[in-house]
Amino acid sequence: MKLKITMLGSGNVATHLSLALINAGHKIIQIYSRNIENAKVLAQKCDAIPIDDIPLLKNNSDLYIIAISDNAIADLVSKVDFNNKKVVHTAGSVSFNIFPKSITNSGVFYPFQTFSKKRELQFLDIPICIEANNADFEKFLINLANQLSDKVLKINSEQRKYLHLSGVFACNFVNHLYHIAGNLLSENNMDAELLIPLIRETSAKMKQLSPFEAQTGPAVRNDKESINKHLDLLSSSPEYQQIYKLISDDVYNTHNFIT
Amino acid sequence: MKLKITMLGSGNVATHLSLALINAGHKIIQIYSRNIENAKVLAQKCDAIPIDDIPLLKNNSDLYIIAISDNAIADLVSKVDFNNKKVVHTAGSVSFNIFPKSITNSGVFYPFQTFSKKRELQFLDIPICIEANNADFEKFLINLANQLSDKVLKINSEQRKYLHLSGVFACNFVNHLYHIAGNLLSENNMDAELLIPLIRETSAKMKQLSPFEAQTGPAVRNDKESINKHLDLLSSSPEYQQIYKLISDDVYNTHNFIT
Repeated sequence: MKLKITMLGSGNVATHLSLALINAGHKIIQIYSRNIENAKVLAQKCDAIPIDDIPLLKNNSDLYIIAISDNAIADLVSKVDFNNKKVVHTAGSVSFNIFPKSITNSGVFYPFQTFSKKRELQFLDIPICIEANNADFEKFLINLANQLSDKVLKINSEQRKYLHLSGVFACNFVNHLYHIAGNLLSENNMDAELLIPLIRETSAKMKQLSPFEAQTGPAVRNDKESINKHLDLLSSSPEYQQIYKLISDDVYNTHNFIT
Repeated sequence: MKLKITMLGSGNVATHLSLALINAGHKIIQIYSRNIENAKVLAQKCDAIPIDDIPLLKNNSDLYIIAISDNAIADLVSKVDFNNKKVVHTAGSVSFNIFPKSITNSGVFYPFQTFSKKRELQFLDIPICIEANNADFEKFLINLANQLSDKVLKINSEQRKYLHLSGVFACNFVNHLYHIAGNLLSENNMDAELLIPLIRETSAKMKQLSPFEAQTGPAVRNDKESINKHLDLLSSSPEYQQIYKLISDDVYNTHNFIT
């Protein structure tokens, strides 16, 4: 069934999700953003109406998707009458309880991925995590998610907090380590591109080996000589030195408490 | 020209490099390891002779490749007469100066990658970093490396130290962050496999965006509310809490000093 959907938000998640929904045969009727220019950019891609004013929201949408920054969701929810509508948010760190109980159908539709406007994404293998306030709406959301992705699962708000946190480690912090590694190269007249095969192989290993099995490097071997040499090389970057020390200690403790 | 090569070592690097050399048409004549069983395993794959005793090393090899653990290289070099031979080591953290000046042709042949015996690798895109004590031997090594990889470059010992260190950040530490992320999931009854699309996309971004441009998450947005919630969730893991705090601070400082 072709749904009429309202997208509240025009950022990375709103953009990727809107396009995936259109690909699955649905219609985005309105795009809301506090900034009309942002709404227009996405609305043009979706053949939708851009709006920046809540009273302009149409009442007849089959689903309202809130895909704005986590901190702004509570405020938006308080301003829109969702009582007899179907509404979800897409945020990892926001509890389902942000919706008042008066809403007939409320839920969460959380695609667990890092989104950048500049990169196209295949939705098919992105886990979509569903939560809903009733069984029928849960089925509705699971059915919709199954049209976008092969990996749909029920995740409650408590779990979703930890899922989001795990993503900070596996994505945001990993990306920062890439930044540090690239800096160490460019400061020594080498190209950060040199890292690409290593980075690709490190992430690809995860499919075949657990990170525990895949761990290599001086810390897991307790090679103190190499560790001390590295700490010396980092003496002009106390922050990098601290990060090196802390993670090396945790690698060592993780592998030597257990093995 | 088909070379006769002696491989000193039978670990991950020795294994992958031997197979790549054979694929390129060369012959591994002997595999040396202190542990004859390890030597036999690799020798069988290479149709080579396994040995565990230095006096058994043949003198007529075109190239001797030392691919043993970094800390054991100095000892091996002191025990073998390489004076009129061609010899390289494959270690990231070991200076070229570990070879005595009396050796006619000494060098480094460092493939910048993480190797696990359980995973097959395409050598073609692995950067091979070359250093040599004379121009002719440098040419010889570059020619050989070009037969294995599309990315061959000259890197001196000082640079190689930082290259190796960058690999610790981009691979060993990244892998440990995957471990932490997987732990947070399994402790909350979720499957670590959920991370795979996120991990793959985070590493794939690096080809298109610099890590600086690609950074997302609470720390770069200075979203203190989310950061404090996450620190609360980690209250039973002081080590994870410390790592979270330190990297978040460094992400924030990196992006807010510069932008």
